[in-house]
Formats: sequence, C-alpha cells, structure tokens
Amino acid sequence: MTQAIQNKTGFYLEDLSVGQKFTSDHFQMTEERIKRFAAEFDPQPFHLDESAAKASVFGGLAASGWHTAAVAMRLLVDGGLPLGNGIIGLGGDLAWPKPTRPGDTLHVESEILEIVPSRSKPNQAIVKVRSTTLNQHDAPVHSFTSKCLVFKRP
Amino acid sequence: MTQAIQNKTGFYLEDLSVGQKFTSDHFQMTEERIKRFAAEFDPQPFHLDESAAKASVFGGLAASGWHTAAVAMRLLVDGGLPLGNGIIGLGGDLAWPKPTRPGDTLHVESEILEIVPSRSKPNQAIVKVRSTTLNQHDAPVHSFTSKCLVFKRP
Repeated sequence: MTQAIQNKTGFYLEDLSVGQKFTSDHFQMTEERIKRFAAEFDPQPFHLDESAAKASVFGGLAASGWHTAAVAMRLLVDGGLPLGNGIIGLGGDLAWPKPTRPGDTLHVESEILEIVPSRSKPNQAIVKVRSTTLNQHDAPVHSFTSKCLVFKRP
Repeated sequence: MTQAIQNKTGFYLEDLSVGQKFTSDHFQMTEERIKRFAAEFDPQPFHLDESAAKASVFGGLAASGWHTAAVAMRLLVDGGLPLGNGIIGLGGDLAWPKPTRPGDTLHVESEILEIVPSRSKPNQAIVKVRSTTLNQHDAPVHSFTSKCLVFKRP
C-alpha cells in the first residue's frame, strides 16, 4: 500500500503517477463558521437555525454542502494536493454522502486516478483526482472526482 | 417553448414536471468579493493578485470556481429554484467552462431533467436539475446537474 504524501509542495506532471495518494491537514468546522457561510451563500433554515434543522431531513444543524466543498478546497490548496502550478479544476463529479456537523474535524484524502496527456500541448495533461473529505469518524462527507489541468515543470 | 419561471416560491413534488424551467435574479461579482472568498477558501495567486493572474493560464484575475458555485447556490435559494422544502442536493456533475471575472453579472437558469419517485417513501423523489450559471454575455461559467431530494406538499 502506498504511503500517502502529506504537505509537500511543487508536484509537476512528471512527478505524478496513477495510484499516488495525498493527505491534507485538518480543519475544524464550528457552528459560527457554518452559520456565517450559510448567511452569505446558502441561507436555508437547516444551515442557520438549530430548531428548524432538527425538524428538517438533516435532523440537526448541517453545513451547506458548498461550505464543505470550499473547506476541502482550502485543505487541498494548503498542501493536501501539492501541485506546483496550482489546482486548476475544470469540473467533475461531486457528492455529499453525509452532512458536516458543528464541531466536525475534516481532512481530505486524494488519489490520482488517471493522467491523460494533451495531444496538442506536450507540456500539459488532464489529471483525474478523487478527493474525499472525511470527518473525525473517518466517514466521507464530501467527495469530488475532478479533472485538473496539470503542467510539466517550467 | 416554455416560459421560465422567475422568483416564485413553494414548489413541491406535485408542482414539478420534466422540462420546467426556472430563472434566478442577477448577482454582480466584484474584485473585492473574489479576493475575499479566495483569501478564505482558495488562496491561489490567480484568484488573489492581478499580475500573478495575468501570467497564469487564466490570463487575468478569476474567481475561485467554488465561489461561483456558492454564488449560484445563493441565486437558487433566493428564488432561482423555488422548492418549498428547500434545495437539498445529494451531489452531481459540476463544470466550470469559463472563469468568472471581476464585474461579471451572473444569473442561473435551471431545468428539471428527470423525476424519480422513491420506491420506499411515497412522499419524496429524486429530482435531477441542471443549473447553468451565465455571465452578462450569456456565456456559461458554471453548471451543476444535481440530484435533489424533493418532497410532496406537507
């Protein structure tokens, strides 16, 4: 089993291989952060108010899925996916299998699934990466299998 | 051609049909908003600094894709996708065909693609919705084809 790479920087296309794994630092979701993000971007009762959330399908306060996705991105940028040219995502497949709750501690585990070199631009490739955000019980709360634009070392 | 529905509220499962279209209000992305979101969730040079962004593949300052996605969610919650029980997404397919730029005015157009009633829970269904975020030139900057949990009128 491959050891996951943690908090390195400066991986370019020639440093990547299918099956490579990366692990991020940890981030704590707080009730204050959940409500602040929701107030700006996703002001629905189950993200803002405990009693409304209890009566909802979530059964309690839950972070906006977009908040969890944004926190996952921050963990990737801070060393969780150490691409030398930055993380440039074109899109992908996103899922929220469980809600993120106040107090949850999140981290992201990523794996390189596929590397497709560009036919016209020899210095770049589309790299498919699956990033799974896990809570402190190692339960996935978010996953994103994305196509990233990755360059060779300049 | 179906007229898109704008800023209505309280659509439940029995009000939805395949092919139905909804249109959101508009939202202006500013440089200040782009940099503030990026500083918190996606602190990469091309989202934070004009000269770094000019030298990057973006060719100029670009919003984090997660910022565009979060703004799209706000537009949907504010009447762009008027579901009576709220917008509860399970996941889906996301793309960023073009960057969002400072000064862009965004709105979201949504279409109901599929309605799959639950076998075990007669009061709910999974509704597949494609939401496309467009800029002031009607160019798509973000799309999300999501599976939403939708309930019958209580």
